[in-house]
Amino acid sequence: MTRKVVRRPARYALRPVGVIKSTLKSRRNAPRQGSEGAPDAWLEVRPSASAGLHRLQPGDEIIVITWFHHARRDVLQVRPRSDPRNPITGVFATRSPDRPNPLGLHPVVVRAIDGNRLHIGPIEAIDGTPVVDIKPVLR
Amino acid sequence: MTRKVVRRPARYALRPVGVIKSTLKSRRNAPRQGSEGAPDAWLEVRPSASAGLHRLQPGDEIIVITWFHHARRDVLQVRPRSDPRNPITGVFATRSPDRPNPLGLHPVVVRAIDGNRLHIGPIEAIDGTPVVDIKPVLR
Repeated sequence: MTRKVVRRPARYALRPVGVIKSTLKSRRNAPRQGSEGAPDAWLEVRPSASAGLHRLQPGDEIIVITWFHHARRDVLQVRPRSDPRNPITGVFATRSPDRPNPLGLHPVVVRAIDGNRLHIGPIEAIDGTPVVDIKPVLR
Repeated sequence: MTRKVVRRPARYALRPVGVIKSTLKSRRNAPRQGSEGAPDAWLEVRPSASAGLHRLQPGDEIIVITWFHHARRDVLQVRPRSDPRNPITGVFATRSPDRPNPLGLHPVVVRAIDGNRLHIGPIEAIDGTPVVDIKPVLR
């Protein structure tokens, strides 16, 4: 007799390594991309992860990966930029924050570093947005 | 009397939306970046997420976000490229797969689309690597 093995989908636990402190307080007022007039903001890295910042320097270009904690995870298709003139499009062909795993990619410049706090920008993420990773831009 | 509120760190559950099917079978033999001689591969999107592919087309440049399931999450500093001549560096200043949330960013071109399977490349992710998000490259 053979047994059918039912494999459950894997899940991985993301643990934020920091948080965005911004003057942008609500998603409604936030620009859609950093290049669209977004402000600079602070990225506060948790003390438990701050050793990971070693050798980052002002002027570095980095990619901040956030978790859009207000996003809808059950959305697979949208009209880009919420514009009714745009055709229905799969979320993987858009930058909509609504998507199964609402990760945000934010290319920014490091303006200054103060201990475990990075001054970065421009960035459209709102105040309180969890940060899950930081990577250098490769050239 | 005041009560001290202890806030537990939030966690978020990442649920893979697909998987990489590649001829690269082990991390040891994989190039460090897609541009370093990596092959093309297939990205198989789960049927439950495939509606998110609508309007993606061959020739599109996308960023595939993976979860490096073999990475070490307790590493905060490394010698880049595992080269002993490189100085100890915080993981947030490197592209090391070892990091608190081992997310990988892979800019690739969509070569072809076959239902819920994307032929993409070049990509250094090994066979079986979970895919957690797909985004278009913004220009």
